[in-house]
Amino acid sequence: MPDAVYKKIEVTGTSSTGQDEAIQNAIAKASQTIKNMRWFEVVESRGNIKDGKVDQYQVTLKIGFRLDG
Amino acid sequence: MPDAVYKKIEVTGTSSTGQDEAIQNAIAKASQTIKNMRWFEVVESRGNIKDGKVDQYQVTLKIGFRLDG
Amino acid sequence: MPDAVYKKIEVTGTSSTGQDEAIQNAIAKASQTIKNMRWFEVVESRGNIKDGKVDQYQVTLKIGFRLDG
Amino acid sequence: MPDAVYKKIEVTGTSSTGQDEAIQNAIAKASQTIKNMRWFEVVESRGNIKDGKVDQYQVTLKIGFRLDG
Amino acid sequence: MPDAVYKKIEVTGTSSTGQDEAIQNAIAKASQTIKNMRWFEVVESRGNIKDGKVDQYQVTLKIGFRLDG
Amino acid sequence: MPDAVYKKIEVTGTSSTGQDEAIQNAIAKASQTIKNMRWFEVVESRGNIKDGKVDQYQVTLKIGFRLDG
Amino acid sequence: MPDAVYKKIEVTGTSSTGQDEAIQNAIAKASQTIKNMRWFEVVESRGNIKDGKVDQYQVTLKIGFRLDG
Amino acid sequence: MPDAVYKKIEVTGTSSTGQDEAIQNAIAKASQTIKNMRWFEVVESRGNIKDGKVDQYQVTLKIGFRLDG
Amino acid sequence: MPDAVYKKIEVTGTSSTGQDEAIQNAIAKASQTIKNMRWFEVVESRGNIKDGKVDQYQVTLKIGFRLDG
Amino acid sequence: MPDAVYKKIEVTGTSSTGQDEAIQNAIAKASQTIKNMRWFEVVESRGNIKDGKVDQYQVTLKIGFRLDG
Amino acid sequence: MPDAVYKKIEVTGTSSTGQDEAIQNAIAKASQTIKNMRWFEVVESRGNIKDGKVDQYQVTLKIGFRLDG
Amino acid sequence: MPDAVYKKIEVTGTSSTGQDEAIQNAIAKASQTIKNMRWFEVVESRGNIKDGKVDQYQVTLKIGFRLDG
Repeated sequence: MPDAVYKKIEVTGTSSTGQDEAIQNAIAKASQTIKNMRWFEVVESRGNIKDGKVDQYQVTLKIGFRLDG
Repeated sequence: MPDAVYKKIEVTGTSSTGQDEAIQNAIAKASQTIKNMRWFEVVESRGNIKDGKVDQYQVTLKIGFRLDG
Repeated sequence: MPDAVYKKIEVTGTSSTGQDEAIQNAIAKASQTIKNMRWFEVVESRGNIKDGKVDQYQVTLKIGFRLDG
Repeated sequence: MPDAVYKKIEVTGTSSTGQDEAIQNAIAKASQTIKNMRWFEVVESRGNIKDGKVDQYQVTLKIGFRLDG
Repeated sequence: MPDAVYKKIEVTGTSSTGQDEAIQNAIAKASQTIKNMRWFEVVESRGNIKDGKVDQYQVTLKIGFRLDG
Repeated sequence: MPDAVYKKIEVTGTSSTGQDEAIQNAIAKASQTIKNMRWFEVVESRGNIKDGKVDQYQVTLKIGFRLDG
Repeated sequence: MPDAVYKKIEVTGTSSTGQDEAIQNAIAKASQTIKNMRWFEVVESRGNIKDGKVDQYQVTLKIGFRLDG
Repeated sequence: MPDAVYKKIEVTGTSSTGQDEAIQNAIAKASQTIKNMRWFEVVESRGNIKDGKVDQYQVTLKIGFRLDG
Repeated sequence: MPDAVYKKIEVTGTSSTGQDEAIQNAIAKASQTIKNMRWFEVVESRGNIKDGKVDQYQVTLKIGFRLDG
Repeated sequence: MPDAVYKKIEVTGTSSTGQDEAIQNAIAKASQTIKNMRWFEVVESRGNIKDGKVDQYQVTLKIGFRLDG
Repeated sequence: MPDAVYKKIEVTGTSSTGQDEAIQNAIAKASQTIKNMRWFEVVESRGNIKDGKVDQYQVTLKIGFRLDG
Repeated sequence: MPDAVYKKIEVTGTSSTGQDEAIQNAIAKASQTIKNMRWFEVVESRGNIKDGKVDQYQVTLKIGFRLDG
């Protein structure tokens, strides 16, 4: 394996549906500007409550991507 | 924004279906007695195993709500 | 309650579908060789990204099981 | 198992005798006003010193109890 | 020292002025309904940003108070 | 609420006056290049000492801002 | 000292008497199948409550033992 | 209350009897050279195992004492 | 830079005014006996409450100083 | 990627030379009995001191390996 | 000291040689695009295993650099 | 084993060569004034960057030593 270097960014995705979709939304958004994304790590899961119900799941990820050689 | 004060309580919701529903159940139960709930933070996710399968998801939340002015 | 002793092992389940299924897969696999499993604790949630999308959810659990008397 | 919901409170018990008794004192006090207590988790253990000796053990617990259905 | 028992609650105070005032506001509010408060512990410090400036400091405290004997 | 996505960056502000001003300086600097900043989280507070006195407060924040739709 | 290698396992001992005995029970049980145990580290202390009293102390240990050369 | 300043030191007490005695031994030893000790905080609990039994409890404390005015 | 070695001590400063002054008081006191102090790290912020108000801010610092060559 | 399941074990390698070699020794030892090892995570680094010098580096790893399908 | 503001980024360097070189590689790569780097903090150390040996050390750093005035 | 009591101090060693040497330097310096040092624990690893390269590794240790009987 070559001595690649990776950068991690921290992104919060949201969804009214669930935690998995919040993760997917975060990654979909990040993919618009970042190439070579390889992995994610969940670092926080929280959300908004409205009228006594979950209004929005908010999942914060670290996303790791390879820096160009 | 006025200088509101919020209280956080810690509640564990359970579900045989999944982690999202355990969150929803915790908040639904809390809404029976607490008003002005604004946000939740997942602090622990665990569960029971029975016959080699997940029997119950147990997700612990902190729930923040505004104290009356 | 008798003074039972429990062992915890750490297992990472994977799934292309979601975090709940990754948990289920970890426990299903562990149940092939371990009896008397009683509870699990989520200790890490991460995953692989491929082509700008979640390729695989990876959820690490501690699984507790009773040691024979 | 029904989808019960639990609340956790945080209580500090004290004792001049030892850590176990501090735990017992915290739970005995809580039982005066709370029903359906199911489990505790030790979150902090500290104490006061007086004249170069332990004066008081102070053990902080989270106590989980089932909310009525 | 008698074997007193203490309860801790978690409260978030806010202020547009600074972190110290957010602490004071949390305690002032709690004092309206709770007696015998003895100590606080800062557990989180965050805030809102508006127009590129701090709009509100939000400091979360644990507040310990003695339960009646 | 639409399914917005947020990015968090980590910034260390400094001040010879106090921790609140260090926070303000970090945010003021970040606002020169970042739009739509919504919240901050204090993650570290430290500083330099010179001649037996505080020379500089150094407060590290995570700053969350909305990514354009 | 030779370059020995150690393995750590995680075990939860229980006792109706106290935390020290829960530790002893965990180690006694582990000693039935593991040789060369050298040290333990307490990683969690919790328990069950029944009828408003401690029913069972549950102390989780990491136990380190030397792997044969 | 005057603006007292306290120092904390970290000390590991040992005992073949139990965790409480390990705490007491640490404080007794520290009291030989330090005055004005006020409180302790348990930061780690571990021990040695010999012949499949607890040989020694080792409890690490932070001890706080007031510096002379 | 020469291979200097630093020691860190842990000190709790107090103030009835605010967290910044508690930090300053801790460092001023430490400077009476310690030379070459270089940096501090805030590790805990708490305080006493009296009559429903903050009576004393208590900020615990690690202070790093260079050991003589 | 198939839904593989991984197990993590915790192993402490030692070396009189350095931290990297302690890691290598832990993995070499584990490889005698475990197949399909894929990754390691450093969880603790400590060591013994003798005659005022490092006598032994002790690095604790979690090692992840794939369970057979 | 002027009230400089610093940004921290998170970068993972890799090396087949050791942890120090993984750190150096991360910083060398970052220096291609970032000026005024001042310090680093190791936040994670892990790696890949292949054929029962360390294949690659992976060390994650936070790197702090001064933002232009 | 007699009921020995140990003290832990926190020391930061530096080196331009690597993390292992930084550890050695910290212990060598401490050994000039402290007897009976027994073990160390790495608690932080960071460093300075200069001209886009590692200028200095800075490793912070806790060092445990036996207090005289």
